[in-house]
Amino acid sequence: MRWSQYYLFTTREVPNDAEVISHQLMVRAGMIKKVAAGIYNYLPLGWRSLTKLMNIVRREMNAAGAIELMLPNIQPAELWQESGRWQRYGKELLRIKDRHDREFVFGPTEEEVITDLVRRDVKSYRQLPFNLYQIQTKFRDEIRPRFGLMRGREFIMKDAYSFGASPQSLDVTYESMRNAYCRVFEACKLDYSMVEADVGTIGGSASHEFMVVADTGESAVVRCPSCGYAANVERAETRGISGEKAEGRQPQELKEVATPGQKSIEEVSKFLGIEPRQLVKTLVYETEKGFVAVLIRGDREVNEIKLTNHLDVQHLTLASEDKVREVTKAPVGFAGPVGLSGLRIVADETVRNMTDFATGANKEDAHYTGVNWGRDAELSEFADLLLVAGGDPCPRCEGTLELFRGIEVGHIFKLGTKYSEKLGCNFTDEDGQERPMIMGCYGLGIGRTVAAAIEQNHDADGIIWPRPLAPFEVLLAALNPDDGEVRRVAEQIYGQLLEKGIEVLYDDRDERPGVKFKDADLVGFPVRVVVGAKSLADGKVEVSLRRDRRKQLVPVVEAVSRVMELLEE
Amino acid sequence: MRWSQYYLFTTREVPNDAEVISHQLMVRAGMIKKVAAGIYNYLPLGWRSLTKLMNIVRREMNAAGAIELMLPNIQPAELWQESGRWQRYGKELLRIKDRHDREFVFGPTEEEVITDLVRRDVKSYRQLPFNLYQIQTKFRDEIRPRFGLMRGREFIMKDAYSFGASPQSLDVTYESMRNAYCRVFEACKLDYSMVEADVGTIGGSASHEFMVVADTGESAVVRCPSCGYAANVERAETRGISGEKAEGRQPQELKEVATPGQKSIEEVSKFLGIEPRQLVKTLVYETEKGFVAVLIRGDREVNEIKLTNHLDVQHLTLASEDKVREVTKAPVGFAGPVGLSGLRIVADETVRNMTDFATGANKEDAHYTGVNWGRDAELSEFADLLLVAGGDPCPRCEGTLELFRGIEVGHIFKLGTKYSEKLGCNFTDEDGQERPMIMGCYGLGIGRTVAAAIEQNHDADGIIWPRPLAPFEVLLAALNPDDGEVRRVAEQIYGQLLEKGIEVLYDDRDERPGVKFKDADLVGFPVRVVVGAKSLADGKVEVSLRRDRRKQLVPVVEAVSRVMELLEE
Repeated sequence: MRWSQYYLFTTREVPNDAEVISHQLMVRAGMIKKVAAGIYNYLPLGWRSLTKLMNIVRREMNAAGAIELMLPNIQPAELWQESGRWQRYGKELLRIKDRHDREFVFGPTEEEVITDLVRRDVKSYRQLPFNLYQIQTKFRDEIRPRFGLMRGREFIMKDAYSFGASPQSLDVTYESMRNAYCRVFEACKLDYSMVEADVGTIGGSASHEFMVVADTGESAVVRCPSCGYAANVERAETRGISGEKAEGRQPQELKEVATPGQKSIEEVSKFLGIEPRQLVKTLVYETEKGFVAVLIRGDREVNEIKLTNHLDVQHLTLASEDKVREVTKAPVGFAGPVGLSGLRIVADETVRNMTDFATGANKEDAHYTGVNWGRDAELSEFADLLLVAGGDPCPRCEGTLELFRGIEVGHIFKLGTKYSEKLGCNFTDEDGQERPMIMGCYGLGIGRTVAAAIEQNHDADGIIWPRPLAPFEVLLAALNPDDGEVRRVAEQIYGQLLEKGIEVLYDDRDERPGVKFKDADLVGFPVRVVVGAKSLADGKVEVSLRRDRRKQLVPVVEAVSRVMELLEE
Repeated sequence: MRWSQYYLFTTREVPNDAEVISHQLMVRAGMIKKVAAGIYNYLPLGWRSLTKLMNIVRREMNAAGAIELMLPNIQPAELWQESGRWQRYGKELLRIKDRHDREFVFGPTEEEVITDLVRRDVKSYRQLPFNLYQIQTKFRDEIRPRFGLMRGREFIMKDAYSFGASPQSLDVTYESMRNAYCRVFEACKLDYSMVEADVGTIGGSASHEFMVVADTGESAVVRCPSCGYAANVERAETRGISGEKAEGRQPQELKEVATPGQKSIEEVSKFLGIEPRQLVKTLVYETEKGFVAVLIRGDREVNEIKLTNHLDVQHLTLASEDKVREVTKAPVGFAGPVGLSGLRIVADETVRNMTDFATGANKEDAHYTGVNWGRDAELSEFADLLLVAGGDPCPRCEGTLELFRGIEVGHIFKLGTKYSEKLGCNFTDEDGQERPMIMGCYGLGIGRTVAAAIEQNHDADGIIWPRPLAPFEVLLAALNPDDGEVRRVAEQIYGQLLEKGIEVLYDDRDERPGVKFKDADLVGFPVRVVVGAKSLADGKVEVSLRRDRRKQLVPVVEAVSRVMELLEE
């Protein structure tokens, strides 16, 4: 492709709302252009990258036995009412009325439509199992769309849905999809991690996320370098942080200590001259089932996803100042288990064995020290509510967990019968019994993966494409294309590269060399070939790799073979 | 692909709303499944055909220099307000409010979005021309969606938009797109015709439609076998139907004749003993600019598109009984030009030279005979309002027009500056002048073309796929796959076909031969290979072409090469 005939206009302007680097670079490199909040044009350069990823995904899905189809964007409200999500999904669901005032949604996900399709087509165990996928535009009306393609409203995802007769059949399909996902991200040359994930509101019995490792990622993940255990911190476990019980030692006396104005763990521990780990922190949450006090060791944080799951509630927020005062009779910062009553109290395992600890006194400007369970307060409900941190012990081996940040690009679920039961998607088994089908669902964000690739692969000057996702593999720049010899050689190399089937963008624009170099770095194609008068006087052209920028002058006749070697690196 | 592992379930049931054959066959062959009125799931088999067509279209668009991108489905209302179509488009435009009550539409076409994109990116003649395309889902909220994919609400189309600096540049792009469209339909092996078309509400200076020839087509088209002239009857012209003036003959006297209850042209001409061509028909139309009487020769029909264009009105309908009585003082069937006043009167060219004709007397149960222009009524406004019919003279040569029916599968327009002016999509020309860009737009219906291919290629038993659009090229049926030898040979041929890169669906299902044959005919793959115990006893398998069903028994070892020969036919 000749740049002069292509639709590619780079810009130095960074939009105000572009907080993350992939968003900035995709706009500056002319890959995307905003139409409205969370809605983008995919410009030709961006569309090429997305297309490459879609082709990789399609290849691996087909290899895993998944079958491609295409479901509609506009879906009847009735199906969503049947599944119960019409009510539950909230404002993220874009609701639409047609000319006859019939209600529809723009599909944010397609469990309802596909389950409806299958219940109409499939009746017998003999027709099972199968796994259907599509690569399709979705819409989620995010309250705060941001980060470009990372959290848009209109976005493209690959979604697959499997249907089987037994949990064992689901296990087989799930495993093959898990492997297919690994192959996709490996084919993209991305540094990624597959982690155990919370099933969240989708439900089901197991779930894994695929995370592209990037400091700018929204998700925190722990990984054990020894055994490979990896999990989203939302659901990560650890081991043995419940502390040792001090045996055979005389417990201290319970004492009320004046702690004027000392509210935070940091302030209180400093004031009392103890470690934060010697405090029990008490947090009051509000849920639709009432108030809940959560106790956790002073130096640790509560994992609200674990808490939500444990309490089995839909809504969970920290109680407001007023509510805390109503429940504990004290301002925020002075709550504690001693004498606390009238609400459910759940203790994280970290506090189970604590002795002689400090805690709030449920009274303004006062704490207790020397608190001991049994004598001073009773605990009856324990749960793992701990937000795991880097440095914690691995739950599976003797290793130590490492924390890193990642961008969630794929998420697979063992759904079970959640949707098939609601929609009556049943089959007759070998014994003539009618049973709900067992489903899995498998999502992969197309635009998000391309954006994540940029988050992971860039420098101060622009994108550094991994070859499989590069919109073009080679940038060929003719410096001063008015120079007849420069143009002749550039055209010749251009023709040879095309002949070899290499995707080359030929910068034949009438622009200054500085502009061409800056643009080449910004759009970041893996290999750059520069034809300039000066080196051409020695019969040479300059070939370099965007990743390390090591420049080599090679004879014109060797240019193409050198490019091909570099592409293989 | 093994049928037993594929998602393909045929059915004998024809849905109530399936009026046309392509709709019936696509449902029965398991290609599509309805979700709501005008909204379909594209099942795996259907999606394969659509994908094949999309690949052909993509190849030809790229070859024609068009550049692929992807615009959003959800578009801000502001852009449609700017173009004026927010008001004008009516209820076919699916309007949507997001969670913040901001207005959007689901794009039925993308002139606004692309013109907005280009006006932000392009400023200079040096950046022109270019041609951008996408293959994308659209939504038009048709009041009466029907005919399956032929007139759905949610549908897939390829739409391209070209931008240039001059009409000459548009001519070049338009020509290259016209050729690309021809190559697409030729590549699909469809019998099609390119015809001159009305520019309609899209506007612009020229327009061509691509029609797949089919008796069931919604469009009527005329074509001249001598010179190749072809046009949608909506805009087709003819020549010399204005009749000869009877010179040197004494005009008859004007006479009022009682014609009790004789209203239609047929009734009146029979009653008066004259030919319908000796009558002048008077039709009263209602428009937003008032009533209009249209005069046309009794044996011909008015082309309402031509009339709309001539009057330059938005709305045009035949006036109701009451309105006709108000305007002509007579019931419907008795209107005529003699003494008619108080409204605009337009005469088709067919009546210009008529003499001694009959017409309504603007009085119940009465007609005039012996009417002559000038003496009895004045005519001042003439226009070509004739609906051209088969047998009319060609307007370009001495040939005679033939009428046929077609399905519109593509439509290309020279848009000119219609949208660039409204949206201020300007460029600076070589003289530093700011001017609006000159646009073209080019649409091709993906689902509709596949449906049209079926309308054109089927028989009583099912689809007869043209190879380029066939979901699979070969159906391999193992009769009685329990027979070890049958299975062994079928598996062997299956493997060989796959090795040759042939797309084969292997019917390995545990079904009776009759079911397999019926299904093979219904889904209609070009070549069928049957492996059965009987012919296998002679070391042979049966190979046949769906199109002519001629069966050949060929030795097992020759099966694959015979298949490949048949595919080339």
